[in-house]
Amino acid sequence: MAAAADHAKPAPPLKDELDIVIPTIRNLDFLEMWRPFFEPYHLIIVQDGDPSKTIKVPEGFDYELYNRNDINKMLGPKASCISFKDSACRCFGYMVSKKKYVYTIDDDCFVANDPSGKSINALEQHIKNLLAPSTPFFFNTLYDPFADGADFVRGYPFSLREGVPTAVSHGLWLNIPDYDAPTQLVKPLERNQRYVDAVMTIPKGTLFPMCGMNLAFDRELIGPAMYFGLMGDGQPIGRYDDMWAGWCVKVICDHLGLGVKTGLPYIWHSKASNPFVNLRKEYKGIFWQEEIIPFFQSATLPKDCTTVQKCYIELSKQVKEKLSKVDPYFDKLADAMVTWIEAWDELNPPKPLLKLSNGTAK
Amino acid sequence: MAAAADHAKPAPPLKDELDIVIPTIRNLDFLEMWRPFFEPYHLIIVQDGDPSKTIKVPEGFDYELYNRNDINKMLGPKASCISFKDSACRCFGYMVSKKKYVYTIDDDCFVANDPSGKSINALEQHIKNLLAPSTPFFFNTLYDPFADGADFVRGYPFSLREGVPTAVSHGLWLNIPDYDAPTQLVKPLERNQRYVDAVMTIPKGTLFPMCGMNLAFDRELIGPAMYFGLMGDGQPIGRYDDMWAGWCVKVICDHLGLGVKTGLPYIWHSKASNPFVNLRKEYKGIFWQEEIIPFFQSATLPKDCTTVQKCYIELSKQVKEKLSKVDPYFDKLADAMVTWIEAWDELNPPKPLLKLSNGTAK
Repeated sequence: MAAAADHAKPAPPLKDELDIVIPTIRNLDFLEMWRPFFEPYHLIIVQDGDPSKTIKVPEGFDYELYNRNDINKMLGPKASCISFKDSACRCFGYMVSKKKYVYTIDDDCFVANDPSGKSINALEQHIKNLLAPSTPFFFNTLYDPFADGADFVRGYPFSLREGVPTAVSHGLWLNIPDYDAPTQLVKPLERNQRYVDAVMTIPKGTLFPMCGMNLAFDRELIGPAMYFGLMGDGQPIGRYDDMWAGWCVKVICDHLGLGVKTGLPYIWHSKASNPFVNLRKEYKGIFWQEEIIPFFQSATLPKDCTTVQKCYIELSKQVKEKLSKVDPYFDKLADAMVTWIEAWDELNPPKPLLKLSNGTAK
Repeated sequence: MAAAADHAKPAPPLKDELDIVIPTIRNLDFLEMWRPFFEPYHLIIVQDGDPSKTIKVPEGFDYELYNRNDINKMLGPKASCISFKDSACRCFGYMVSKKKYVYTIDDDCFVANDPSGKSINALEQHIKNLLAPSTPFFFNTLYDPFADGADFVRGYPFSLREGVPTAVSHGLWLNIPDYDAPTQLVKPLERNQRYVDAVMTIPKGTLFPMCGMNLAFDRELIGPAMYFGLMGDGQPIGRYDDMWAGWCVKVICDHLGLGVKTGLPYIWHSKASNPFVNLRKEYKGIFWQEEIIPFFQSATLPKDCTTVQKCYIELSKQVKEKLSKVDPYFDKLADAMVTWIEAWDELNPPKPLLKLSNGTAK
């Protein structure tokens, strides 16, 4: 009977292969709304700010929680690469996860409804996106060719229809759009009400502004590049953590032949952050991005960069060489990129090779 | 009183600056459904096949009609560049138009409804797309930043927010999707029911499969590159006319800094063409596109190609040099590309320079 019941209700997809990473400074009441979708999964909560504060997590969720003391204890001097007083600290959760997939969400993001009024299971859509191939080498005008009722259109080369593995699924936001401070100031009342029923691959060679609010990725394929940089306490900049990760990730995915998707699923972004505070955090970035983006647009990686780690270390060298002249901050950031990889490899040692009975490694 | 009434009902946008080009072999009853949207505009009808046949056009439309005899008479020996017994003949209409904008539509395309049930004025949406800038250099995750209620997201460089002029607006199709013969054969019942409420710029460096069924463009910006090639009667291939134009157009738009958009508006594509007939027309193209697309992906144009004509002639040379080895057809096609430009320039002589009273040209 139990087996029959199990059979009737399929297990949530990737239940034992995905962690949900949440950076926070407050009690996680927002999880109540996500309970039907998140409860089967393991949560990694990265507590930012005062470590003596207690973060309450609603009953019934399976979680581990790390505060700054934990981070310092686990990483020692390498903890310097993890930001403090900024949601960039979430990338520590990516590092300690032992799962193949990660979904990260902000604690001011609620469940959105689709146009028919149905609650959107954002996680399920991200998993669909990650498990279906991407198509970065040619544009499909009917969007995701792997979606139900869709396919490749006339003129799409058949040799490209297998696609490539998907490394990143970038979800969107209804209600409060992810605007920068100047746009927030100019359009305080603008709300995103447009539900665009599409997932698409961002073409090879095209950069995009990756937002960390509603983001999933394959840790095994791209994890070590998901570094959210040095932001917040003691740093000259904030709110560019996810952007930085997105630029690095896209260059490395393009080099390694991996896909990045954007579009569905939507979450409901409940409240706009303070545009004046944001402006203070962002204003250097607004200048710097004018030089950073051309840098990443022209960055190329040598052929012998065959792993994400090698790509990332190479990128850190290029950052040091070409962006340090923009501001000394990039010199520090380039060093932190290296520290991040060292810490990642320490916590994620290469899997030991299995010895076969004939003595060869498998 | 008349002035007040005029004021109450605004004139249709670009009424005197846009031609609608329709290739056909039958009576144009489909125009009845489009009457509320198309009647104010001028139509250019390109009659394919037997020129002795009479094509009936519903009362009240303002049109000019060209059959094969007219094309031969107007172009003389250069008429060889215009396809016969293939809807590729439509590009003759682009050439004889005297307007700044062209919209072209197939005669099996009807008015679609949006999800609220409202009839979609496809032409109006194309005009919006053409009159708003494109953003080919960086991807905006909330799609068209110039749409109502949308903007550039956080992390979008401010220096790129002016955008570039839009040369092409590529619309989509509900009901019968634009599939190739193999996909039609495999999925005879598939219908496109997904209304994706988005317009987006196809990024620089990315090619796409341009479909001629529902397409608008700025003749002054890109007209001479909208050549639909040699298809149909006497040619080894069909159904690649719009694809060919799309590849050429995209490479030239990327070179000249012009934008290509895809997405809204949808039309209702009423009936699938015969997949067996299509397979016969397409099968060489299915092989050839595997070499043509890498050719266009790596094509670059020299700096001194500053006009569409110069770009197109240069591209014809590269086609001759690099694709003739795929099949002798491309040698013929390259010659036809040159003939097309010669015919275009004959029918569209450069505007005479105005002499100012001080003797300098303006």
